[in-house]
Amino acid sequence: MSGRIAVVCVSGGMDSCVTVAEAVAAGFDLALLHARYGQRTEARELRAYEAIADHYGVPFARRLVCDLGHLGRIGGSSLTDPRIPVAQAEFARGRIPTSYVPFRNAHFLAGAVSWGEVLGAEAIYVGAVEEDSSGYPDCREEYYDAFNRLIAVGTRPETRLGVVAPLIHCRKSDIVRRGMALGAPLHLTWSCYLSEDRACGRCESCVLRLGAFQEAGVADPIPYESR
Amino acid sequence: MSGRIAVVCVSGGMDSCVTVAEAVAAGFDLALLHARYGQRTEARELRAYEAIADHYGVPFARRLVCDLGHLGRIGGSSLTDPRIPVAQAEFARGRIPTSYVPFRNAHFLAGAVSWGEVLGAEAIYVGAVEEDSSGYPDCREEYYDAFNRLIAVGTRPETRLGVVAPLIHCRKSDIVRRGMALGAPLHLTWSCYLSEDRACGRCESCVLRLGAFQEAGVADPIPYESR
Repeated sequence: MSGRIAVVCVSGGMDSCVTVAEAVAAGFDLALLHARYGQRTEARELRAYEAIADHYGVPFARRLVCDLGHLGRIGGSSLTDPRIPVAQAEFARGRIPTSYVPFRNAHFLAGAVSWGEVLGAEAIYVGAVEEDSSGYPDCREEYYDAFNRLIAVGTRPETRLGVVAPLIHCRKSDIVRRGMALGAPLHLTWSCYLSEDRACGRCESCVLRLGAFQEAGVADPIPYESR
Repeated sequence: MSGRIAVVCVSGGMDSCVTVAEAVAAGFDLALLHARYGQRTEARELRAYEAIADHYGVPFARRLVCDLGHLGRIGGSSLTDPRIPVAQAEFARGRIPTSYVPFRNAHFLAGAVSWGEVLGAEAIYVGAVEEDSSGYPDCREEYYDAFNRLIAVGTRPETRLGVVAPLIHCRKSDIVRRGMALGAPLHLTWSCYLSEDRACGRCESCVLRLGAFQEAGVADPIPYESR
């Protein structure tokens, strides 16, 4: 216990798992935040989050699950509206994919800042990746710069909290390598947007993940539908 | 129906009620967002919100109640943590009162932006008041400027949404006068931090409200404990 706390936003995916490992490597005590928002694989992601928290021995008082059912009711995304199909991976430069959940990350960060302010945390770690990713507007460095400005003007004068996105400029394959080097429990993570038992291997999240492991020359330890 | 939508954040208090009236006066169709976050007077505020929505004939598809129970569990405020007493009104320049809920308004605004983006809204109206108020950091103009920057970088390129805080530089008595001029249903509003039947008249929110009506020379239409 260093006494220095970082709140880490943990979806349960590969990037957030490696982000937890980065916060540990930076000497922080962990406080792990997860959100349920009516996404298709809500239950599976929650299980991955709990498994990662268990792996790092995070006490229950330092785990916070936010129920954001209204984000699901708002819809507007293939992840939360069953009428919008999850596209098989297709990445077009400058196009926002249907899996974009409008302004989602602000909900997570708002929870992390509120919690972090009460805990007296120093940092909020997020696993956002700007390049080599889906092109969501709220996964870009300029978004986190703007959020840090918002924290500076919107919290108590004595609060010193900043968002850190250690993977923001990483390639996905670098994230795999970094996770291996830090001993991150990648076998506990879940990335698939569609399935909860075996990953589909075809949605954009699976395709990005599989490409990353392949490029890193490492086998992905989670089960996939037979391909 | 103008076809131009504004999402209005409605706590159920006087300021948010007048803000609804301002959005109507500006020609917007209304979409009203409310949040429950474990605050002491949660049930009473929800009733005030529904009454205001009924008054303006807002269809149910344009009402969104966000359940933010995690904000209550995070605590750190006299409004959400029963162990922290609600202070009787005392305003010291530069001091943040115990009723400050850490980074609360970002939760409301995140919901408003997500919803607004899906609805194709043009504006988000909030009833924040900077001067003549409790001194919360997230009720200041520079906070809303920072939030507008966050929206600009964190949403789809085609989204055109901005936060409007029409009362930000008003005195509280001006808000009463403006509400009267616009026919805002002030009798349906609730401001007290402590009580749900008759307003206490002593908490900082009641004291600010009563002072405003007194200065405007108007009787406050809601019931107070005998004083």
